[in-house]
Amino acid sequence: MNKFELKSLLDDGALGTPAGRIVRMLTERGAMSAAQLSRLTGLAKSTVSTAVAELRRTGMVLEAGNEPAGGVGRPATALTLNPGAGTCIGILIGQTEIQLIVADVTHTVLADKIVVMEDGYTPAMAADLIRRLVAEAYETQWQSPSGLLGVGVAMGGPVNPVNGQVLRAGGMPDWAGVDMKELLGPLFEGVPIFCDNESNCSAIAEMTWGAAQGFDDFVVYTLDLGVGGAIVSGGRVLRGVAGGAGEFGHVVIDPNGPLCRCGNRGCIEVYASFRNLLPEAEAHFGRPLRITDVVEMALGGDNYCRLLVERAGEAGGHGLGLIGSVFNPPLVVVSGRLARTGDLLLDALARSYERYTLVKHNDVPDSARTIFRTSTFTDGACLGAVGLVLRHHGRLVGQAA
Amino acid sequence: MNKFELKSLLDDGALGTPAGRIVRMLTERGAMSAAQLSRLTGLAKSTVSTAVAELRRTGMVLEAGNEPAGGVGRPATALTLNPGAGTCIGILIGQTEIQLIVADVTHTVLADKIVVMEDGYTPAMAADLIRRLVAEAYETQWQSPSGLLGVGVAMGGPVNPVNGQVLRAGGMPDWAGVDMKELLGPLFEGVPIFCDNESNCSAIAEMTWGAAQGFDDFVVYTLDLGVGGAIVSGGRVLRGVAGGAGEFGHVVIDPNGPLCRCGNRGCIEVYASFRNLLPEAEAHFGRPLRITDVVEMALGGDNYCRLLVERAGEAGGHGLGLIGSVFNPPLVVVSGRLARTGDLLLDALARSYERYTLVKHNDVPDSARTIFRTSTFTDGACLGAVGLVLRHHGRLVGQAA
Repeated sequence: MNKFELKSLLDDGALGTPAGRIVRMLTERGAMSAAQLSRLTGLAKSTVSTAVAELRRTGMVLEAGNEPAGGVGRPATALTLNPGAGTCIGILIGQTEIQLIVADVTHTVLADKIVVMEDGYTPAMAADLIRRLVAEAYETQWQSPSGLLGVGVAMGGPVNPVNGQVLRAGGMPDWAGVDMKELLGPLFEGVPIFCDNESNCSAIAEMTWGAAQGFDDFVVYTLDLGVGGAIVSGGRVLRGVAGGAGEFGHVVIDPNGPLCRCGNRGCIEVYASFRNLLPEAEAHFGRPLRITDVVEMALGGDNYCRLLVERAGEAGGHGLGLIGSVFNPPLVVVSGRLARTGDLLLDALARSYERYTLVKHNDVPDSARTIFRTSTFTDGACLGAVGLVLRHHGRLVGQAA
Repeated sequence: MNKFELKSLLDDGALGTPAGRIVRMLTERGAMSAAQLSRLTGLAKSTVSTAVAELRRTGMVLEAGNEPAGGVGRPATALTLNPGAGTCIGILIGQTEIQLIVADVTHTVLADKIVVMEDGYTPAMAADLIRRLVAEAYETQWQSPSGLLGVGVAMGGPVNPVNGQVLRAGGMPDWAGVDMKELLGPLFEGVPIFCDNESNCSAIAEMTWGAAQGFDDFVVYTLDLGVGGAIVSGGRVLRGVAGGAGEFGHVVIDPNGPLCRCGNRGCIEVYASFRNLLPEAEAHFGRPLRITDVVEMALGGDNYCRLLVERAGEAGGHGLGLIGSVFNPPLVVVSGRLARTGDLLLDALARSYERYTLVKHNDVPDSARTIFRTSTFTDGACLGAVGLVLRHHGRLVGQAA
């Protein structure tokens, strides 16, 4: 079975075949046993067994080793896709940077380039740079373009995942209306392109390979220059009818508060984003600072920086408490550069969350408590764009799986 | 094929068979064409065709008539379950009433009884009453108990849908810890019992037969004595790790506001619930009033009552705006007795929503706007409990469908 056959197995038309469902499950979730495959696909064990035998015979699926079988019986054999079966490109088009990753279907990164961009760079500049980055990747690690399964794009603003059009003024207002598939299509002829915003891509990375593995329902809460996030429900990233789901930074926590850049008053972002807190720190220290400087100083024990991180955590936790009363999630993955401060941030966040949310920690048993964790990836969006390709559009545009 | 075979087709074990998946889809969604069945189940058209032919031969599935096929080609034949294939019981255990419905698998209501209860009625009192209501239903319209597929219970407080245990202090604090399956099991020997809270059951009724038909993602927002709601995502009602998803009444809109009965300050419910507004109206008119009195007077043009409904709508819309920034839903179904005032409430609600939410009406095209609608059912929870049985537990406890 060659690389083109993996492509066809990931097509929507193949969703009904056992092999198609098994391959899609392995691309989405990584290694798993035949028993897990049977449970998650809803296919009978005998059907899984027959299809897996055929997929192994053709070299599409490999045995990845043994997994403990929950303590009872002999260990189950974990199955995984053959890394040689194909590659994916992930691209991050961020507010201040463009990143390009090439990865195989087991999401091993084969090439990774990142370029810092000037404020207000144009779509044409982005396309030129991406063309160059792809050419470099071809020349070096990534030899053959024939097995390219798809291109995933993580956008620094809201984007319609179905048609690839950048939506209303968001993080990248100059890009509103740009058709990403039209912009990048000529660079990747005939290869499918999938788009989503960067928060949603980060959520896919955490779900597939990071802090949210094993969770079908969770919230990503990003504290960085801005405040944002994503909601995953039933393994599906929620988008909202206008791409506005998970816009946590713009939940109003004080209707009489200061004006936010979105036009409303008293949004979480006004209080918890480093866009607003960084200038305070710069005034205090009398020099220009980046978020990472404040993070380093806080980790080094500087009291002013520790208090600043705690303030962001308290304001962020207040807003997150409201989100908790809406979703009551099993897990919150805290991401963004502030998350590197670990417990310093998490403690302030959880304390404030507890005060403002409905379900209180001590009122419910352990199993019903919301877990707070920092993210596995600091810059997971580009890796998540690879995940976007592997998960394909079927589950991602809101269709039933 | 007899009634017991419908039961077995709805069992989890049958999920993998084409007939099982088709029957489950028809119980969940009502009438649909073979083409829709193929699309929604992921089964090949030929597989659907073979399975439907067999189901029709045995009398399990009937032709319901023709449906327009989207304007092109000849109309598709709509398929539906045979109403004689089985019955379900739906029970509402509310804060002030107990209701019992018997319905067939096409959700035609065969019997419907409602009994007003004293404040603080006990689980034992409820069980006795339900036993009596069931016996009465047997004696009258509903002749044979042999086709009973299951019992659905809509609780006036949070309940664990997996084990049927009533959770932490909610709308019915005296019931916390009660095991509903243990309480009602002896009344329905061997018949499966499914539980959920009343807001979630209302959402199921609206999704299956009401204002949210055709929507896989929407929010129910209830304005009544209390404020509450439910979130449906990908056709699944979200519950939250402690049953606290959709507790919209307790989203804090003013951290310095008055104390709420939940212990927090400035919750939506403090401003928008008739628990707080009704006493004002009683003071104004100098006599005891029910919500429906205020609704009737508002509809009759009474200015004071109209203003009171608008105040609830404005406060409710403020909170809903925050929920909108989190979820950006395609549809909000406004339910509860206040919804009977129609546009009077909806206009105030939408105006206030627009002010506090991130994505503004005029910033996006029609197709990306949130729709506001009043609910189809005034008391949909008990009917939704029937829907709970028809949808079965598979999709409802958070497992992938």
